[in-house]
Amino acid sequence: GDDEDLDLKVKWKGAPEFSNKDGSFKFKIRGRIMGDYDNVDQDTAITGEPDISGTELRRARLGVEGVIMTNFKYKFEVDFAGDEVSTKDAYVAWANWAPVEKSEVRAGNQYVYSSLEQVTSSRFITFNERAAFIDAFFLERQIGVGVLLGDDHWSFQTGYYGAPPDEQGDFSDDTSAFTVRGTVAPINTDTTVLHAGASYRHRDAGTSRDTGTAELFQYRARPDNHLADRFIETPNFASGDDMFVLEGAAVFKSLSVQGEYAQLEADDALAGFNPTYNGYYIDASWFITGEMRNYEADSGEFGRTKVLNPVTDGGWGAWQIAGRYDVLDLSDGSGAIPGCTECGEQKTWLIGLNWLTTDYTALKLQVAQAEIDGGANDGAEITSVGLRAQIDW
Amino acid sequence: GDDEDLDLKVKWKGAPEFSNKDGSFKFKIRGRIMGDYDNVDQDTAITGEPDISGTELRRARLGVEGVIMTNFKYKFEVDFAGDEVSTKDAYVAWANWAPVEKSEVRAGNQYVYSSLEQVTSSRFITFNERAAFIDAFFLERQIGVGVLLGDDHWSFQTGYYGAPPDEQGDFSDDTSAFTVRGTVAPINTDTTVLHAGASYRHRDAGTSRDTGTAELFQYRARPDNHLADRFIETPNFASGDDMFVLEGAAVFKSLSVQGEYAQLEADDALAGFNPTYNGYYIDASWFITGEMRNYEADSGEFGRTKVLNPVTDGGWGAWQIAGRYDVLDLSDGSGAIPGCTECGEQKTWLIGLNWLTTDYTALKLQVAQAEIDGGANDGAEITSVGLRAQIDW
Amino acid sequence: GDDEDLDLKVKWKGAPEFSNKDGSFKFKIRGRIMGDYDNVDQDTAITGEPDISGTELRRARLGVEGVIMTNFKYKFEVDFAGDEVSTKDAYVAWANWAPVEKSEVRAGNQYVYSSLEQVTSSRFITFNERAAFIDAFFLERQIGVGVLLGDDHWSFQTGYYGAPPDEQGDFSDDTSAFTVRGTVAPINTDTTVLHAGASYRHRDAGTSRDTGTAELFQYRARPDNHLADRFIETPNFASGDDMFVLEGAAVFKSLSVQGEYAQLEADDALAGFNPTYNGYYIDASWFITGEMRNYEADSGEFGRTKVLNPVTDGGWGAWQIAGRYDVLDLSDGSGAIPGCTECGEQKTWLIGLNWLTTDYTALKLQVAQAEIDGGANDGAEITSVGLRAQIDW
Repeated sequence: GDDEDLDLKVKWKGAPEFSNKDGSFKFKIRGRIMGDYDNVDQDTAITGEPDISGTELRRARLGVEGVIMTNFKYKFEVDFAGDEVSTKDAYVAWANWAPVEKSEVRAGNQYVYSSLEQVTSSRFITFNERAAFIDAFFLERQIGVGVLLGDDHWSFQTGYYGAPPDEQGDFSDDTSAFTVRGTVAPINTDTTVLHAGASYRHRDAGTSRDTGTAELFQYRARPDNHLADRFIETPNFASGDDMFVLEGAAVFKSLSVQGEYAQLEADDALAGFNPTYNGYYIDASWFITGEMRNYEADSGEFGRTKVLNPVTDGGWGAWQIAGRYDVLDLSDGSGAIPGCTECGEQKTWLIGLNWLTTDYTALKLQVAQAEIDGGANDGAEITSVGLRAQIDW
Repeated sequence: GDDEDLDLKVKWKGAPEFSNKDGSFKFKIRGRIMGDYDNVDQDTAITGEPDISGTELRRARLGVEGVIMTNFKYKFEVDFAGDEVSTKDAYVAWANWAPVEKSEVRAGNQYVYSSLEQVTSSRFITFNERAAFIDAFFLERQIGVGVLLGDDHWSFQTGYYGAPPDEQGDFSDDTSAFTVRGTVAPINTDTTVLHAGASYRHRDAGTSRDTGTAELFQYRARPDNHLADRFIETPNFASGDDMFVLEGAAVFKSLSVQGEYAQLEADDALAGFNPTYNGYYIDASWFITGEMRNYEADSGEFGRTKVLNPVTDGGWGAWQIAGRYDVLDLSDGSGAIPGCTECGEQKTWLIGLNWLTTDYTALKLQVAQAEIDGGANDGAEITSVGLRAQIDW
Repeated sequence: GDDEDLDLKVKWKGAPEFSNKDGSFKFKIRGRIMGDYDNVDQDTAITGEPDISGTELRRARLGVEGVIMTNFKYKFEVDFAGDEVSTKDAYVAWANWAPVEKSEVRAGNQYVYSSLEQVTSSRFITFNERAAFIDAFFLERQIGVGVLLGDDHWSFQTGYYGAPPDEQGDFSDDTSAFTVRGTVAPINTDTTVLHAGASYRHRDAGTSRDTGTAELFQYRARPDNHLADRFIETPNFASGDDMFVLEGAAVFKSLSVQGEYAQLEADDALAGFNPTYNGYYIDASWFITGEMRNYEADSGEFGRTKVLNPVTDGGWGAWQIAGRYDVLDLSDGSGAIPGCTECGEQKTWLIGLNWLTTDYTALKLQVAQAEIDGGANDGAEITSVGLRAQIDW
């Protein structure tokens, strides 16, 4: 019959992944929706900001990924949350050229690889938002060239990058970033994972085409809730920065601990004082229902959790409880930097309860309390509740 | 052969709908293009607005829908008309949990279910534009949680919602909406449909993060042609509103009549006078070629018409003629509301001729004449011709 | 087995093209990513513009194309480069109604067919950017109706169009364009192609809804590098224009020459002097590795090159060297047109080296030197290097 000629295989991964029979071509649609409700007590008496009650599509993404003739890969995904375009991964890669699990040279928009929590997909992070330093130190995607290598017990990423997509063409001399990250997993078994990593990133501010001057960097973050305001925030003052990050994680069956420490030295272009900022977090989580976090050693990140008893099979799904302590300190030299009125420190406690109903769907609830030390919002306590419904395909 | 292992089924619905063999996973790309030419005589002598001759992509959408493990569904669609992003349905749903045809709990961006014409897809409405009250009373999508139930002779929808996608994060306290809608179809056979429905919606205006004050609602509409200007329009004055809608429709073979009446009571935040606005329409249509409008009782809406003799098979396609009378009255208390200079009434007659060449393609021609009573444009007659080419997949 | 009922065929064209067995339905996802690094010496001493070093996603597109019931086609593609929406082809077509290879009536957003280089996809052009006159004379897509016909030795396109997507609804009377283009290929064999073509386009400026006056046309171009500034540029002065284009191309095995000449007469709405602008280019290219440019006679354009020995099969891929001379002259009557301070001439030499690693992937390197004659930037020499990584699916 005709079907004998049908050069097609399919794997159901949320959406179907199609491939031809020899696997040299692959194609899959990808996407995710995260719908949030956030309620935030913003300590109006101190901060002057009103309390928050609101919904948002935190992420609403559609994209594709594929393989062409075995050695070329592409990934392209766009986020439409807030009815705005935000290009995520958008690259072409030359892949599988080294005798290890993962080997890619990517050209296009991609992460400036710097942190375990950064490179772990928003679909698979434990809390609703990543730790504060990841937001503050701009661990985002930029357009450039990256090299990725990895195997069962290590990973390595490096790259050189120009502007991020929303600023492309704005600079005569792009914002640029160089990064290098390495991770090791001396233990990586079905029951136990031990992960350690380190990275270094250097950035230079771009030169605006319009003004001819550098567009200086700023550092700021929200109290681990996306609809909250920002209560620690520097002015735009840095012409460049150097960042070091240390990563650690350990998983034993359904238990997991994870932590990172980041230190950033900023080159103050205005007052000549070069402050050192730092941020760190440590979290612990437990799958009551016995699941284990899924570690991907060859890229040094966490992936999709396999739910043991999905609710669609009559099970309870996966229930996970988690806690995190998250600190970001932007207070160094706040007196020496003009306009540094909100250069304080933020310490946030979070408790989370996640219900992974299937491998692709989840409800996530988190409560956070952040304390501000220093700056105009000194003494403020920001308490938030965040509820998320998510699906990906 | 290998094909015996291919866990794939396909149905051709414009684009292919893929599913695995047991039907627990489904996936389909969706989209639509509507290309319009509009010509509008705007009665410049009275209104001061120039006549219009122009083309537009009225809708240009791309999206996906799918089922994951039987009980989870998602739908995500974005409109790019005018080179702008407008997120349409973007939700995750827990489905098929009740012993009826349709049972869903949806989280994300979705309709605030209020009206038969609103919930009927723009692909399947009889005229190019929905009736004026649907535009004026903001029967749009917002981000929240909805519950949908329905079976062969009834449907029920309720929900509570926050901001629409383009305003998410703008409010300290979101625009919110609560809605409940019920419909019955005591007769629902292959030749005859009788539909009745009612809904209630309450809204509160959101509190702007920037100003700390409520972003008051405004009411306005176009004369049933999308490139025309608006000739009745209130100022932004309402802090909240309550809306009641009554729906009725009857289909007998190729004949159909449909009508709705909506009444909205606005809470005037400025002058204290609370006006009552109303709108209604009644339309009748006839498929000369014998087709019947396709009623979907479990959601209380009309769906895709099955064309008996598509032009691609050498047939004439489906030819439909239709007429509508559409009234929107925003004149109540116009003297008492400051700035209510254009708070008039609009009465519009429409005649339409639709050529459904196949199930997925159509040419639509409509002529409309609107009369403005009251307000600054009192006495104006707006005459328009609208031509649309559409396809969906 | 079940598979005997699977009404599906697949062709792997980057992404899979699905069709049903009788070919009456087809569906394919399409897209492209082009990641660029550009370095431009902008002759700051004369032009005052800084030198450029930057990266960008030159194109980042996602879309679909399909056939519904044999005679209806659609194509819809959106570009997200720079985190902005730019709608590309977005039309429904009635197809295959004439006994020739190609017959379509398209409604929606589509090219105003005017030039060989314009209608050749950006994936398949020889250099990174099209010739300067194509940018300067706005050979872009607009929303309207087009008729396309073609066979093995000729093609014909005509159409009438309103606003482009980003301006739809802005005009009371749209920017409009009428165009007609014809091409012939007296020789079109496996080794030899001879192409000639001509086109005429008339445009009228649109009437702004806001101001009630015409939005006058402007003419300008970059020195064949997309991150460079523009050094020849007229003010907005033309209420309409007439353009004539002559096309020629010859391919003999791996050698190709191509050239076009365009002349545009602008109706000066301000000073009454109607200047005549012109632009032309000629390029030559050679596939060292023996490939031949792929000519599509029925649409009068070049298509995808078939790489003889892809790198993924251990080959060298296709290596192509190319040169171009590209002239745009906007100097006519510069003294008579108020504000015409940069109405000069630009002459650009380009050398290109393209490495087509597979049919779907390429690295492109080009060096360009442009000389400005006349106007404020008289005597400037702009030298640029452009490097591109691209993939399409």
